[in-house]
Amino acid sequence: MSEQKKSITVALDIMGADVPPDSIMTGGIQAAAECGDELQVTFVGKQEVISNFLDKQKNVPSNISVEYAAHAVAMSDNPTEGIRKKNSSIAVGLGMQKRKEADAFVSAGNTGAVMASAIMVLGRIEGISRPAIATQFPSRSGRPTLVLDVGANVDCKPMHLFQFGLMGSVFASLMTGRTSPRIGLLSIGEERSKGNEQVMQTRELFEKSGLNFIGNVEGRDILSGRADVVSTDGFVGNVLLKFTESIEGFLTKSLKRQIETNIFSRVGAGLMTPFLRRLRNAFDYSEYGGAPLLGINGVCIICHGTSSPKAIKNAVIVAARMVKHRIGENIRQEMAILNNSNNNEQDDKSQNGRDRFVRSISSDDEL
Amino acid sequence: MSEQKKSITVALDIMGADVPPDSIMTGGIQAAAECGDELQVTFVGKQEVISNFLDKQKNVPSNISVEYAAHAVAMSDNPTEGIRKKNSSIAVGLGMQKRKEADAFVSAGNTGAVMASAIMVLGRIEGISRPAIATQFPSRSGRPTLVLDVGANVDCKPMHLFQFGLMGSVFASLMTGRTSPRIGLLSIGEERSKGNEQVMQTRELFEKSGLNFIGNVEGRDILSGRADVVSTDGFVGNVLLKFTESIEGFLTKSLKRQIETNIFSRVGAGLMTPFLRRLRNAFDYSEYGGAPLLGINGVCIICHGTSSPKAIKNAVIVAARMVKHRIGENIRQEMAILNNSNNNEQDDKSQNGRDRFVRSISSDDEL
Repeated sequence: MSEQKKSITVALDIMGADVPPDSIMTGGIQAAAECGDELQVTFVGKQEVISNFLDKQKNVPSNISVEYAAHAVAMSDNPTEGIRKKNSSIAVGLGMQKRKEADAFVSAGNTGAVMASAIMVLGRIEGISRPAIATQFPSRSGRPTLVLDVGANVDCKPMHLFQFGLMGSVFASLMTGRTSPRIGLLSIGEERSKGNEQVMQTRELFEKSGLNFIGNVEGRDILSGRADVVSTDGFVGNVLLKFTESIEGFLTKSLKRQIETNIFSRVGAGLMTPFLRRLRNAFDYSEYGGAPLLGINGVCIICHGTSSPKAIKNAVIVAARMVKHRIGENIRQEMAILNNSNNNEQDDKSQNGRDRFVRSISSDDEL
Repeated sequence: MSEQKKSITVALDIMGADVPPDSIMTGGIQAAAECGDELQVTFVGKQEVISNFLDKQKNVPSNISVEYAAHAVAMSDNPTEGIRKKNSSIAVGLGMQKRKEADAFVSAGNTGAVMASAIMVLGRIEGISRPAIATQFPSRSGRPTLVLDVGANVDCKPMHLFQFGLMGSVFASLMTGRTSPRIGLLSIGEERSKGNEQVMQTRELFEKSGLNFIGNVEGRDILSGRADVVSTDGFVGNVLLKFTESIEGFLTKSLKRQIETNIFSRVGAGLMTPFLRRLRNAFDYSEYGGAPLLGINGVCIICHGTSSPKAIKNAVIVAARMVKHRIGENIRQEMAILNNSNNNEQDDKSQNGRDRFVRSISSDDEL
């Protein structure tokens, strides 16, 4: 490590999840151990909870630090109540980022409260009307499909859907190294004439943007991997996300019923256990390390309330990579290029060329 | 069979599917053979196609008849073009029902054209603003969840969503024998405060209806079986339906990748084949025999373009059962009761009691 290289600090909310704080902290320690000095993980939560946990550890990596918060937002709190809790782990963790004491915030707590607080404390990127939650779905190609929004905005205007696609494209380009990610607009048919009013108007915005817009995609195209980024409103996205999360339980239940009725498949089931586990994991979005909230001035990743330590570890590492790739700054630049291009439609379209993100990546080495 | 008992005639469109007409007719023959004289199946399509098929059959059941149609609507036709084809198998089959020469129509052809033609030719049930396509999803409970609308109406008002729930409730009650089916309204959280504008207004309509409304349900509740009927707009429903249909391909692809990498799971995979087939079938809506279009004056079932003979057989049998249970008449009565109840809110609520459909079932014996 060169001395010039500043480490990235991720504030990790250890409170308010469905799993115990110890499980969250275990994930944080795994991330710290895996990344070394490049990463600083700060546990944010109640003093006694953190101390009890750390006292039990044989080795605490030197890149773990702590920041105490007197309160926690409960899963049952509504977002407004959540925001009002001044010294909650959410408020303290985001406050660190606001004061530049941290670069990112990761929480497995109350989604609505985290989202609302992040937008309030960190603010929106200039030009972005509605920050959105992005989630990676598995696909047949083996490379995930990024779907957004999955719950931040239920009633969307065409401009919002367009901006979701743009933000997703920046994220997919920088984080997964895809040049010119294919953006699809979720609808009920590929034809221009199909879809609701919202979709038809959004299509026009994409078509004149210069982004790599592949047109309408359908429900089946998410798992097929036909698009890298799928734009939809938070209502449809959230219904799809929760439906997808329930597939695991459905498969398990169907398997049990099958095993009970057939001795041959009982033998098969034993041999197939690793496969089924992997299959179920494919439908579990915590494997991808949580869902980034895109469009804010900062980095915030919202994890599932039942996140495993591995999911927390992944989320912390993804958060640090988002900082490194300056996702927010790139989204801001992309918005500016598009606005500029719209104002000067005669200008050379190459301004909207494929490789425009590459120049702005701060470093090539992966965290 | 008593002589008084009139058989039920199902007009089966043999044209315009993705599978060949012979495959559709094979399903029709299976239905005719299974049901005997209670059912009459009429093949509707091009003369030479039907003759060629029937000439090859060793035994054609006596309850198979034919009705020739000079044209076919292609999958690629838009619904407006489809409606204009006067002597298409869709127009001829629905015309038979209009003239009371048939009681039901089943087609695996162009969904949009079948839907639009059925509404135009047969008309809507009095009081129903928007007919809807209903589809059965599998559930952990083993009993399917009926979701509607899955594509007929992309932009819906609260009254439409309410009527979808009502129609689904009548269908589930009569066709699956559930007393007082639980109706859920698809949203992004169970709480009253969650959902979009449309959902919040629809909730009020359900709450004062006297139907067995269980409140908002989420994406995960479809496979969990928490509701018998789930109401949503045709945009969300269609995205979900197509997403669900793609799960089979995703599972197969994931299985293949797993088998290629692991000898133990290769053995397991062989033993698990029947299970996986069943699992995939669970996600294939053709197993339920197609999707009824509810809210029209008549019976119309729309099948998947790639329907197997078994799916067609099931669809024909379900169509005949819908005729027997007088689904349309029961939806009309239910609408009248609700309108009456809304006009006389002081009236005894028992008018809206649980068992109101039972009296109107024409017969208890199952087709």
